[in-house]
Amino acid sequence: MRLAELSERSGVPIATIKYYLREGLLTPGRQINARTAEYDEDHLRRLRLVRAMIQVGRVPVATVREVLGHVDDDSLPRTIRLGAALWALPQVPEPDEEDEYVRGAHEVADQLLESLGWSNAQALVTISPSYRSLVVAMAALRRLGYDWDPQLLLAYARLMHGAAVLDLDFVETHASEAEKVETAVLGAILVEPMLQALHRLAQEEESARRYGFGDQE
Amino acid sequence: MRLAELSERSGVPIATIKYYLREGLLTPGRQINARTAEYDEDHLRRLRLVRAMIQVGRVPVATVREVLGHVDDDSLPRTIRLGAALWALPQVPEPDEEDEYVRGAHEVADQLLESLGWSNAQALVTISPSYRSLVVAMAALRRLGYDWDPQLLLAYARLMHGAAVLDLDFVETHASEAEKVETAVLGAILVEPMLQALHRLAQEEESARRYGFGDQE
Repeated sequence: MRLAELSERSGVPIATIKYYLREGLLTPGRQINARTAEYDEDHLRRLRLVRAMIQVGRVPVATVREVLGHVDDDSLPRTIRLGAALWALPQVPEPDEEDEYVRGAHEVADQLLESLGWSNAQALVTISPSYRSLVVAMAALRRLGYDWDPQLLLAYARLMHGAAVLDLDFVETHASEAEKVETAVLGAILVEPMLQALHRLAQEEESARRYGFGDQE
Repeated sequence: MRLAELSERSGVPIATIKYYLREGLLTPGRQINARTAEYDEDHLRRLRLVRAMIQVGRVPVATVREVLGHVDDDSLPRTIRLGAALWALPQVPEPDEEDEYVRGAHEVADQLLESLGWSNAQALVTISPSYRSLVVAMAALRRLGYDWDPQLLLAYARLMHGAAVLDLDFVETHASEAEKVETAVLGAILVEPMLQALHRLAQEEESARRYGFGDQE
């Protein structure tokens, strides 16, 4: 397809596509003559991913380039390739390891991984930004004077493992290795707001089931 | 306890506590003499909640006052009181109902609630900001050229219902009606970042279980 059709099918303005091409976020089309290039379905797919990262995920252009570098890196085994692409997305800042609440949060998080039997996640604690996010969230809670019930944490973690199984089952429905990694990146940006909305809706449903709306009172 | 002890136990500076008192986010202590007031455990609990909303949730002061008004409103039945407090928290902007993607997202969301049998949530669609968030998240996805598999949505929604059951079971462990509502507000601010971190950790664990780390390749 020509640039105009790529723009129409993606909903991305031509000027924006040209900008992405200049920034190296999109590979050039196949040059037909001096003025015309031809684009294919791979370009369309990649363009949608770039736009999702920039417009919805508010990911900076330099970071998008880094994420795509990992998406396209055939030399990496799948877990590392997925991890590298996802970890290149913007993450929470490093926690202050001198802070007493951060140290306490590490203990709770490590105990949780042990109880869950998540030995792979345990092997990644020194490098995983997801583990770091968990520590930051727990430290915030403890700093506010609250503490977690370990049983409740376990139950939440098992539910989230159920979500991860769904995520990866869906990733595996895609044919090529690059598409699998692209789908995982999209999921990180687009699925989380949806899960949060579903969670709140479920709270409303469950609250009304338990306590009614109070119309009869 | 005196103001100094309230400050020490909460970790909130005295000047900040005085500011919260002036803004009506904290009820005055019991006046012992012209210069001294006495505070109790209720003050400490409320102070922690206010700080969680302002520091972690970035909730504006006027909004905190509104949320607390609902938390303290004994006249409301429980579902409405919980809903009013949670809905007073900052929410996503109203979607543009003229937008074709928003209209499409309404259809998918309504079908989802029907399939789930969430009749209480269905009764709330015209007023629930959680339903609105779901529509906004789905419309964003469709605008990017993606579509949801209804079966996958159902599976995610059922997991999030599991989380809502845990949330409300925990809320019910608290004695007073006001504490129950306070706990629900705290949960909305503090539990969601933790669930997101657990979700990402679970993805890493599951990915490594399925594909290994590639060390042997």
